[in-house]
Amino acid sequence: MISQKTREQLHKRLSRIEGQIRGLNRMVEAERPCIEILTQISSVQEALRGVGKIMMRNYLESCATKAIRSQNKKRTEETYKDIMEVIYKFAK
Amino acid sequence: MISQKTREQLHKRLSRIEGQIRGLNRMVEAERPCIEILTQISSVQEALRGVGKIMMRNYLESCATKAIRSQNKKRTEETYKDIMEVIYKFAK
Amino acid sequence: MISQKTREQLHKRLSRIEGQIRGLNRMVEAERPCIEILTQISSVQEALRGVGKIMMRNYLESCATKAIRSQNKKRTEETYKDIMEVIYKFAK
Amino acid sequence: MISQKTREQLHKRLSRIEGQIRGLNRMVEAERPCIEILTQISSVQEALRGVGKIMMRNYLESCATKAIRSQNKKRTEETYKDIMEVIYKFAK
Repeated sequence: MISQKTREQLHKRLSRIEGQIRGLNRMVEAERPCIEILTQISSVQEALRGVGKIMMRNYLESCATKAIRSQNKKRTEETYKDIMEVIYKFAK
Repeated sequence: MISQKTREQLHKRLSRIEGQIRGLNRMVEAERPCIEILTQISSVQEALRGVGKIMMRNYLESCATKAIRSQNKKRTEETYKDIMEVIYKFAK
Repeated sequence: MISQKTREQLHKRLSRIEGQIRGLNRMVEAERPCIEILTQISSVQEALRGVGKIMMRNYLESCATKAIRSQNKKRTEETYKDIMEVIYKFAK
Repeated sequence: MISQKTREQLHKRLSRIEGQIRGLNRMVEAERPCIEILTQISSVQEALRGVGKIMMRNYLESCATKAIRSQNKKRTEETYKDIMEVIYKFAK
């Protein structure tokens, strides 16, 4: 469901985020100023949101579209429910 | 500025988040369902928000309080500005 | 596209929110404590999010489903783009 | 605690938001496209966030600063708690 190209893109981004988290750990260790650490946390949140966007778009294009086109009432309903849940988890 | 106890708490949480990011990478590799991956991204966001809360509280208790109590107009103004910026970065 | 029942539900909620905004104006006039006003603003945000959820669900069930089922590539693409935009406007 | 100037600014903004809510009600009545209504809801959320920012800044400058400078441990603690609560209500 996830194309080779998207997988590579996600892999690269997630590896960068992993590095950012390690960086955060070092910043805490080095007692960097709180505001600097908080700003870095915001950057990681933003980066994760980017990964989420790629996944969300992928989900809409593949799974959601397939389910909605199946004309199967139950699958379609579940897809709406899933989209709503994911949106409002992100909307926090 | 960050107590030994808080540093350990942050260290533990950040290490767990690092593991979650590696887990996300494996989920993408294993082509887990998009919704499952999106839900996991939400969990990491929530965990990062937890780390941010600890840092924010620490910032208020230490740096911000010191700056505001200094009665120094410029330092106080900068503290307001920093708090506002951090709040509205998080509020995204 | 919006059923009579949903329209009534939205109308009721929006009228209540309008009242809440007027209430906020009175709270400012009466110089109520800032925290009280901020808490009230949060309530209105939450209420608006509720209206947004109803609209989003309605959009998925009607317009989005129709567009995706049309098998029309351009309409489908636009629907993905619209959903992504709305999600990430809300995700702020 | 809220200056005359800030009160007028808030009053103006809240009146504009009240008008936007009435506009939303009319858009639902007129069965405007869902995406248009959702975009308008986002605008109102953004406008409310603006009001929240003014209140938050005012709160920090007046009540919070007074409480923190009082050197009263209990009042200071309560202020931290209030700031944290408001931040994380907004951070949704």
